Amino acid sequence: MYNLLKGKRGIIFGALDENSIAWKTAERVHAEGGKFVLTNAPIAMRMGKINELAEKTGSEIIPADATNLEDLENLIVKAQEVLGGKLDFVLHSIGMSVNVRKKRHYTDQNYDWTHKGWDVSAVSFHKVMQTLYKQDAMNEWGSIVALTYMAAQRTFPDYNDMADNKAYLESIARSFGYFFGTDKKVRVNTISQSPTPTTAGQGVKGFDGFIAYADKMSPLGNASAQDCADYTVSLFSDLTRKITMQNLFHDGGFSNVGVSNAVMEQFVGEE
Amino acid sequence: MYNLLKGKRGIIFGALDENSIAWKTAERVHAEGGKFVLTNAPIAMRMGKINELAEKTGSEIIPADATNLEDLENLIVKAQEVLGGKLDFVLHSIGMSVNVRKKRHYTDQNYDWTHKGWDVSAVSFHKVMQTLYKQDAMNEWGSIVALTYMAAQRTFPDYNDMADNKAYLESIARSFGYFFGTDKKVRVNTISQSPTPTTAGQGVKGFDGFIAYADKMSPLGNASAQDCADYTVSLFSDLTRKITMQNLFHDGGFSNVGVSNAVMEQFVGEE
Amino acid sequence: MYNLLKGKRGIIFGALDENSIAWKTAERVHAEGGKFVLTNAPIAMRMGKINELAEKTGSEIIPADATNLEDLENLIVKAQEVLGGKLDFVLHSIGMSVNVRKKRHYTDQNYDWTHKGWDVSAVSFHKVMQTLYKQDAMNEWGSIVALTYMAAQRTFPDYNDMADNKAYLESIARSFGYFFGTDKKVRVNTISQSPTPTTAGQGVKGFDGFIAYADKMSPLGNASAQDCADYTVSLFSDLTRKITMQNLFHDGGFSNVGVSNAVMEQFVGEE
Amino acid sequence: MYNLLKGKRGIIFGALDENSIAWKTAERVHAEGGKFVLTNAPIAMRMGKINELAEKTGSEIIPADATNLEDLENLIVKAQEVLGGKLDFVLHSIGMSVNVRKKRHYTDQNYDWTHKGWDVSAVSFHKVMQTLYKQDAMNEWGSIVALTYMAAQRTFPDYNDMADNKAYLESIARSFGYFFGTDKKVRVNTISQSPTPTTAGQGVKGFDGFIAYADKMSPLGNASAQDCADYTVSLFSDLTRKITMQNLFHDGGFSNVGVSNAVMEQFVGEE
Repeated sequence: MYNLLKGKRGIIFGALDENSIAWKTAERVHAEGGKFVLTNAPIAMRMGKINELAEKTGSEIIPADATNLEDLENLIVKAQEVLGGKLDFVLHSIGMSVNVRKKRHYTDQNYDWTHKGWDVSAVSFHKVMQTLYKQDAMNEWGSIVALTYMAAQRTFPDYNDMADNKAYLESIARSFGYFFGTDKKVRVNTISQSPTPTTAGQGVKGFDGFIAYADKMSPLGNASAQDCADYTVSLFSDLTRKITMQNLFHDGGFSNVGVSNAVMEQFVGEE
Repeated sequence: MYNLLKGKRGIIFGALDENSIAWKTAERVHAEGGKFVLTNAPIAMRMGKINELAEKTGSEIIPADATNLEDLENLIVKAQEVLGGKLDFVLHSIGMSVNVRKKRHYTDQNYDWTHKGWDVSAVSFHKVMQTLYKQDAMNEWGSIVALTYMAAQRTFPDYNDMADNKAYLESIARSFGYFFGTDKKVRVNTISQSPTPTTAGQGVKGFDGFIAYADKMSPLGNASAQDCADYTVSLFSDLTRKITMQNLFHDGGFSNVGVSNAVMEQFVGEE
Repeated sequence: MYNLLKGKRGIIFGALDENSIAWKTAERVHAEGGKFVLTNAPIAMRMGKINELAEKTGSEIIPADATNLEDLENLIVKAQEVLGGKLDFVLHSIGMSVNVRKKRHYTDQNYDWTHKGWDVSAVSFHKVMQTLYKQDAMNEWGSIVALTYMAAQRTFPDYNDMADNKAYLESIARSFGYFFGTDKKVRVNTISQSPTPTTAGQGVKGFDGFIAYADKMSPLGNASAQDCADYTVSLFSDLTRKITMQNLFHDGGFSNVGVSNAVMEQFVGEE
Repeated sequence: MYNLLKGKRGIIFGALDENSIAWKTAERVHAEGGKFVLTNAPIAMRMGKINELAEKTGSEIIPADATNLEDLENLIVKAQEVLGGKLDFVLHSIGMSVNVRKKRHYTDQNYDWTHKGWDVSAVSFHKVMQTLYKQDAMNEWGSIVALTYMAAQRTFPDYNDMADNKAYLESIARSFGYFFGTDKKVRVNTISQSPTPTTAGQGVKGFDGFIAYADKMSPLGNASAQDCADYTVSLFSDLTRKITMQNLFHDGGFSNVGVSNAVMEQFVGEE
C-alpha cells in the first residue's frame, strides 16, 4: 500500500457483495488512505452485505436510487458533509438489463425494459455527473470512473441491450468529460474490464464458458475484480491527471488480439 | 446513372424537404431503378413537402411514427404489398433532440427530453429492424443504412445529447447487424456523414461556422447531401455485400485529420 | 455490369493468378468499362499467368519492381501514354514478408528481412503515390486503393511482421491521402479484407484453419476475392468521391464481432 | 512520493536534457524507489547532459545505439549485472526523422532517410524487446512502455514520416506484446502523449503554434513531460498489471474532442 489516496474523498456506487468490483475497489481505496461514502439502490442493499463493507472500511452508507435525481442530490450533499469537503473521486459501477434478466432476445425486445435498462445502466451516470456538476461538488483534478465492457465496440451476442447501454455510457463519459474538464478540471473515464464473475454478471447465459474463452484469448489472462480495483486506484490518484474522456481497456490484452494460439488450437481441435 | 438498384425495393425514412439527405437519396435511388415507399412522422409530413418527392419518384407515402411499433408494423406490411415483395434496402434518417431544440445545455438536461430524443433518434432504429426481422421482410443480401455523426466518437460541445444518441444508434447497428447477418444475410451499417446544412441540422447553435470549420479541416471538403445519396446507393447495391456492422465515415477525410494546414493558418492568424 | 468505370483509366498492381484479388479486380474493372495497365514485379510475372489476364481484358503489361523508383516512373509515364491520359484509379495489392516465408518467428526476426518486407509491402505504396503525385498523373476525383489486413489493429500471431507492415501501409494511406486530397482532389483508402485464400496467402502457417475460424466468426461469412473486386469497383466509381483516408473493413462483419455463437459453440464443445 | 517502484529495476532510453520526457521519468522513477540504467546513443550523449541526471539519480550510464543489436545485447547484459537482477521496467523514448530534420516534404521523401528514421524510431523498439526476450531479461509482470503520438491515427501535416513510424511502433507494441504477455507475463504499451516542447520536438515546423492549438483543444490542457513521467510511473507500478497491448492517450482529452469551444471561437473570430 502506498498512501496514493491519502486525504482524498469520494463516493463508491454499486458494491453488492465481495464479488463486486466496487467492493474490491472500496477495500483498496481504503487501504490507500481514501475516505468514501458507499451507496447503492435500496433493493440492492437488501440483497447484498454492504453493511459488512462499511464496517470494514469505516464508511457510511447513504442509499440512493441512481436514476432518481432527488436521491442523488441528497447523497451528494450528505457525502460532502460526512466526509468534510468536496469530492476527489467517484466510481460508477451500475448496470442492469431487464431484457437479459427476463431472457428476451435482442431481436425481440420489450422496449419498456429497454428503457429501464438504459436509465439504470447509462443515464444514471449522466445524472450522477449532472448533480455533482451543479453542486460544484468535485475538487479540481478529481477523477470520475465508470465501468464498462467491450460489447460497446464489438458484438457479444448474449450481452443483449447492455451493449447499447455501455456504448451510451461511454459516450456520456466523453460528452460530460469535455465539460467537466473544461469547466472544473475534473477527469472522466471508463474502464472496459474483462468479463468478471461478479454476482451481477452471472445473469448472462453461458457466462462461464465465455470467461474461459476470454481468458484463453488474453495474453495476460482476464483481469480480475481485484486487478480492476488496483487499476481504479491508479486512475483516482494524482498520477493520471491528464487522462480524460478515455475508454481504457483493462483486459489482459483481449481487445487487441485477433485470435490467440490457445483459442485457435482449441478451435481446430489440435492438442 | 447505372441501373445499380434495378429491381430492388425499399423504404426511405426521413425525407422532409429538398435539403434532406433522405430526399436526395430517394431521387438518386429512383434514378438507379430502385422502387420504394416514403415514410415520415405525421408531424414532419405536415411541415415538409414529401408529396412533391413522391410524385417525382412515383412513390407512395405511408406515414409512420418510427417510435410506434404498430405504425411500423403497418408500414412494413403495406410497403411489401405496394412494392410487390420483400425489401432490399432501408434508409433510417431520423434524429431529434428536445434538449437541443429547447436550448438545454448538456450539463443541465431535462431527462424526459433526453428520453424522448433517445427514443426518436436511436431506439427507432431498433424498432424498425425488429419489425423487419419479425416479419422476415428483408431479402437475402438486403442492406439497411442509418445516418449518424462523428460526435458519437468525439465531443462537439453543441451537439449535446445527440452525441450519446448516435453512439447508441451505432451500437444498435452492430448488435442487430450481428443477428440480421447471421440469420438473414442482411447487412446493417451506419454512414457517419459530414455536417450537412439540412433543415434539421439548423437547430444546432453556430452551425454555419462549424460547417466552414469542418470544410477547412477536410482534405476533400465536406461531403454534401448529394454525395451522401451517391454513397448510400453504393451501400444498397450488390457491390458491397460483405460490408456489415460498420460505421463508415463519409466526410472528405475529416475523421482522420488531426489538424489541417488551412485550419492551423486561420488559428494562428497567418494568411 | 453497370458501366460504372466507363472512360476511366488506371493501373493494377499485383495480379499473379486467378486467385489474386488484383486479378479478380482487373476482370471486374474491365467488365465495368475501365481501361488499365497491369503491372507486377518481373519475378512475380514469371511465376504467374498475367499474360492470360492481359489478353482477356485487352490490357498491356508494364513490368515494374514497386520498390524501384525508376521502374515506377517509367510505368506511370508509359501507362498514361498507353491509356491516352491521366489516371483515375490505382490498385496496390502487394505484400511479402521474408520472415514469414523463411519461418522466422516474430520474436526472432532477421532485420534485413524485416527491412525487405517493409520496403515491398508498405513503402512501395508511398513510392507509387509519390511518383503519381510528382508526375501529376491522377485526374481530380481519382481513387487510390491498397489492400490491407486487420492484423494492423489486432494481433494474429502467425501474421508476423506483416502486421507492422500493414500498420505502416495504412498510415501512409492517411498521411499521403491528406496531401493528395488537399492538393489534387484524389482519394486514398485501404480495404481491410477478410483472410483470402490467394496463392500468396498460403505462405502463412495454419491458414486453412484460420480461414474457417474467420468465416465462422463473420455473420456474413468471409468476403471472397470476387467480393473484394466488387467493393473495389465501388471505391473506384464516382459514388464514393468523399471517402478518403479511411481503412475500410470488408470482412462480413468480423472486425466488430467480439465472439460469434458459432465460434463459442465450437470452443466449448457443444454441437 | 509513494514508493511505488521500490525494489524494481529497469532501463530508461532517451534522456537528453531536462526537457526530455525520459529525463523527467528517470527523476520520477528514482523518487518512487526504482533503480535503473540510463542509456542513449553515443551522439545524443555528447549533445545532452545525461551525466548530470546519472549523478542525481545514482544511476549508471551504458551507451547504446538502439538500432545496433550488439549494443543492445551488451546493454541488457550489463544492466542486469549493475542492477543485480532481471528487469521490471523499460522506457523507450526514441524518435528521429531525417526527412523532418532536412525539411523534405512528405510527398518528396528521400527513401534512404525514410529507412533511417524508421529504423531509429520504430524498429529499435522491436530490437530492444527481441533482445530482452531472448535474454529472458524481464521479470514476470514487468512493464515496457514506448512513447508515441496521435499522428499514428490522424494526420498532422508537418509530422511527416514520423506518423508512419509511430504507427509501426504502436503495431510492434501489440505484436510483441502478444508474445511477451503469453510467454513471459510482461506487458507492453505505448503512451500517446500531448505534443511536448522537448528539445527533439522543436525540429517540427510551427511547433509552438501547434502546441497552443492542442492546448486549447484539450479540456484539461496539454499533458506536460512531468505529467507523462507521473503516468509512466503508474504503468510501471503493480497497479496496472493487466493493461497490455494498448495505446494509451495521455493528452488532456485532445484525442476525443471533435472541436472545443475555445478553438471554434478563435476560428470564427469571436472573442
